[in-house]
Amino acid sequence: MATDPEPSPWQRKLHEIIYEADTTAGKAFDLVLLFVILLSIVVVMLESVKSINAEYFEYLYITEWVITIIFTVEYILRIITIKKPKKYIFSFYGIIDFISTIPTYLTLFMGGYNVLLAVRALRLLRIFRILKIARYIGEANKLSIALKHSRPKILVFLFAVIIITIIAGTVMYLVEGEESGFSNIPLSIYWCIVTLTTVGFGDIAPVTPLGRFIASFIMITGYGIIAVPTGIVSAEYSKAGEKTVPVNTQVCPYCAEDKHIDGSEYCHNCGNKLNE
Amino acid sequence: MATDPEPSPWQRKLHEIIYEADTTAGKAFDLVLLFVILLSIVVVMLESVKSINAEYFEYLYITEWVITIIFTVEYILRIITIKKPKKYIFSFYGIIDFISTIPTYLTLFMGGYNVLLAVRALRLLRIFRILKIARYIGEANKLSIALKHSRPKILVFLFAVIIITIIAGTVMYLVEGEESGFSNIPLSIYWCIVTLTTVGFGDIAPVTPLGRFIASFIMITGYGIIAVPTGIVSAEYSKAGEKTVPVNTQVCPYCAEDKHIDGSEYCHNCGNKLNE
Amino acid sequence: MATDPEPSPWQRKLHEIIYEADTTAGKAFDLVLLFVILLSIVVVMLESVKSINAEYFEYLYITEWVITIIFTVEYILRIITIKKPKKYIFSFYGIIDFISTIPTYLTLFMGGYNVLLAVRALRLLRIFRILKIARYIGEANKLSIALKHSRPKILVFLFAVIIITIIAGTVMYLVEGEESGFSNIPLSIYWCIVTLTTVGFGDIAPVTPLGRFIASFIMITGYGIIAVPTGIVSAEYSKAGEKTVPVNTQVCPYCAEDKHIDGSEYCHNCGNKLNE
Amino acid sequence: MATDPEPSPWQRKLHEIIYEADTTAGKAFDLVLLFVILLSIVVVMLESVKSINAEYFEYLYITEWVITIIFTVEYILRIITIKKPKKYIFSFYGIIDFISTIPTYLTLFMGGYNVLLAVRALRLLRIFRILKIARYIGEANKLSIALKHSRPKILVFLFAVIIITIIAGTVMYLVEGEESGFSNIPLSIYWCIVTLTTVGFGDIAPVTPLGRFIASFIMITGYGIIAVPTGIVSAEYSKAGEKTVPVNTQVCPYCAEDKHIDGSEYCHNCGNKLNE
Repeated sequence: MATDPEPSPWQRKLHEIIYEADTTAGKAFDLVLLFVILLSIVVVMLESVKSINAEYFEYLYITEWVITIIFTVEYILRIITIKKPKKYIFSFYGIIDFISTIPTYLTLFMGGYNVLLAVRALRLLRIFRILKIARYIGEANKLSIALKHSRPKILVFLFAVIIITIIAGTVMYLVEGEESGFSNIPLSIYWCIVTLTTVGFGDIAPVTPLGRFIASFIMITGYGIIAVPTGIVSAEYSKAGEKTVPVNTQVCPYCAEDKHIDGSEYCHNCGNKLNE
Repeated sequence: MATDPEPSPWQRKLHEIIYEADTTAGKAFDLVLLFVILLSIVVVMLESVKSINAEYFEYLYITEWVITIIFTVEYILRIITIKKPKKYIFSFYGIIDFISTIPTYLTLFMGGYNVLLAVRALRLLRIFRILKIARYIGEANKLSIALKHSRPKILVFLFAVIIITIIAGTVMYLVEGEESGFSNIPLSIYWCIVTLTTVGFGDIAPVTPLGRFIASFIMITGYGIIAVPTGIVSAEYSKAGEKTVPVNTQVCPYCAEDKHIDGSEYCHNCGNKLNE
Repeated sequence: MATDPEPSPWQRKLHEIIYEADTTAGKAFDLVLLFVILLSIVVVMLESVKSINAEYFEYLYITEWVITIIFTVEYILRIITIKKPKKYIFSFYGIIDFISTIPTYLTLFMGGYNVLLAVRALRLLRIFRILKIARYIGEANKLSIALKHSRPKILVFLFAVIIITIIAGTVMYLVEGEESGFSNIPLSIYWCIVTLTTVGFGDIAPVTPLGRFIASFIMITGYGIIAVPTGIVSAEYSKAGEKTVPVNTQVCPYCAEDKHIDGSEYCHNCGNKLNE
Repeated sequence: MATDPEPSPWQRKLHEIIYEADTTAGKAFDLVLLFVILLSIVVVMLESVKSINAEYFEYLYITEWVITIIFTVEYILRIITIKKPKKYIFSFYGIIDFISTIPTYLTLFMGGYNVLLAVRALRLLRIFRILKIARYIGEANKLSIALKHSRPKILVFLFAVIIITIIAGTVMYLVEGEESGFSNIPLSIYWCIVTLTTVGFGDIAPVTPLGRFIASFIMITGYGIIAVPTGIVSAEYSKAGEKTVPVNTQVCPYCAEDKHIDGSEYCHNCGNKLNE
């Protein structure tokens, strides 16, 4: 393909409004889009409620089409104003934008309404694009740092939880058996997860004394290990926001002081130059 | 309106008793009021219990009227003893005070008893006025600082939780469908909140294998993210209270260094004797 | 009363064994007592299980009498070997010891078996006396310090929780009403506590859309505020154990003081130069 | 027994592959083994689901035998390639490996299928051998340190929880009695554990006002003490990972550097004296 043509001024202007959130117009665009996305989700929800859908079908139908047209216009504008449309179209958000728009058109030709409802709910994912604004709120940053640092530890932890649930689930299946509702091992594992996470629906519950004894053990374990991810995030979050700074183990050549703030030029203990 | 007249001595005295909690009389007034408010809430509760209301109707009725008269007198006194009555009447507490008093009078003319019961329960809000005393207990302060600092982060977090529940709720609606009790998307979202917060009533529970698998995923997620707000408050609370802990504020008479480990004999900064 | 007579050697010896846990005999006595108390609790439990009580009545009956006689002997010995018997008899543990012994004798004269069962369960409280040993494990100490410091803050917090449950309970009573199982305000408050603490039995659950919406709000609130006591204990516990953090184990060459703030130039104990 | 013969080169090579995970071949072996173990667990699970077992019985049967033969070969190789086979055979993993292999052979002679299913589920324990790899991920280490340090404290805590549940269970048994489902004391204790850990199945729930009041008290207690293990792990985890030291905000009079380790004499940035 030839080199991309230089974008015209209105293209640049529109690009600024649609893709960025620094100008007033750009912020306004994002807010309007946020409102339309939320409205589209509300419409999907209300359609799923039988009584409401029966009574207000027309209003929901019209709103749905208005939203779809707005999304269509937005989608076309996004393609026109960007330098490399292909890159946008096949990007994560490009695909989400396309999927958010197309289901309503498909209902004209197809009957499988429910599946399209599911697809339409994916519109909510569009909200993450606008949350780029939220990123500037500042708080989200620190939280995401803490979570990023916690992730590998929490994965190790979740792996341990899964092993516990598989073993405990098999044991409960053998102890309680089919009559108590523990019909098979996957179901017993499901019950273990429900119990270990302290959710406890109660649709399945042990009835034999031994089963109840083992269940007590599982519950107390769950109660004990709930502490682990909390402790991890807590510690990571403290670190992310802490007034202390990381020190290295660089040793001063004059006084052998061995704790210095990263990037120190002089020893804080004897005043001599470090790092010569 | 003309300038407010200078309050007479008894007005000043009453103002001190009613609005402040520094004098013995003021504290006594607050304690009596606290007792009457709690009594009024107990009466509202007991009235709602059919069997008790049937048997002790007269006692409850009389108590209710006594409380109402006390509230009425208090309300009038508050208006009389304040410099700018209008400001009080239309303030948050002014309105709560009015609303706390009026329902019993309305029962003389109206039949809609239940709605008035609701309004009477609002009397509990009056308790927050008296909690101004509690503020001086000292502990509440630190707690409220930690919560104030945590608020923006917890809001960001709650926003993330809401997005998760909407997406997960829609998925569960499509997977489980109406026969399992997931009749519509708002109900599915309600179920997701019940599950993610580990409450788990069990009035609605997934029955299909796929639904149970997704539910397991939601529960483990919930278990994992319960750590986030805890970590935040924990870190903020540590920070709010951590200036006082390991050092005292003893000042070295030689070098004015002001942080020393409890029980230090000599200044760790200049080597001179402390505590002479 | 005259001055207490000097205790004879065997009284002293017995006192050491019964009341203290420093000698081998004293420790053995405590371990035997621990075993008998636990056995007595197991007997109480098994008696409450109908099928077991029917089959093994004789064994349980004999065991119960053996335990009672051991307790009786111990009680008499405690009185004999102490200098001021009156002080012991009316102390907390003296009363517990008496109450632990008497119910079995009363069954000879009385029929009210169940109430005596309850009283017999109080024997478990005797275990706290033996836990004086546990105190020396060392860990319990730090935990109890952290809890003692947390108590006032947690009380303030619990007070806030109670106010929330009362208001939310009244609202749920009015929204859901009797048909949904929210028969009266105290029951609604009970439901709120069940929900806010994320227990969620499911015996009562909201059924109206508005009730479910409010319930969602209560649950998310509960999820958010579960963080508060955790944060408090977490911070207090960190503090209780943090003596190792800000100091190093550098030893002063003059006075051998071994705790100094990191980076100290002079010993805070004797004033001499460190690290020469 | 005579001295062990020197292992031949292929024995050494095989030993390296089977017992270690440092070479490429050794890692590949561990990954294949991991896959086979997981597959064997999936087969056990699917066999427990009646409908699946009925339809795909043959496939499951064949897969089971293939897995068993792989395990048998592996077991023999492990014995051949190790210097002291006896030590391996009677080690924890040697026994687990034997138990993982033998049940399928036993099904040829015995009918007691279900018990063997249980034994086969023990294969999952083999996964811990391969997790030696996971140990090198690094995160697990820190977590296990934090847990090891927390263990004695959590045990003290769990002991307290058990005492609370026994006392509360007995009280609930006496208050609610058999009609409410609290048929005996052990069952009441089970209910207390379910409630205190905030699981709340709802298969047993108090129905009398007094029972509900006590239950509320138990739940709020549970809500309060959930903080304790979290606080412990949180604090221990913080300690285990903290390479940082506290800094103050002392500003250097020469270069305005504003982060110094507490007690610094000289600026670590420009080398001049602080605090003159």
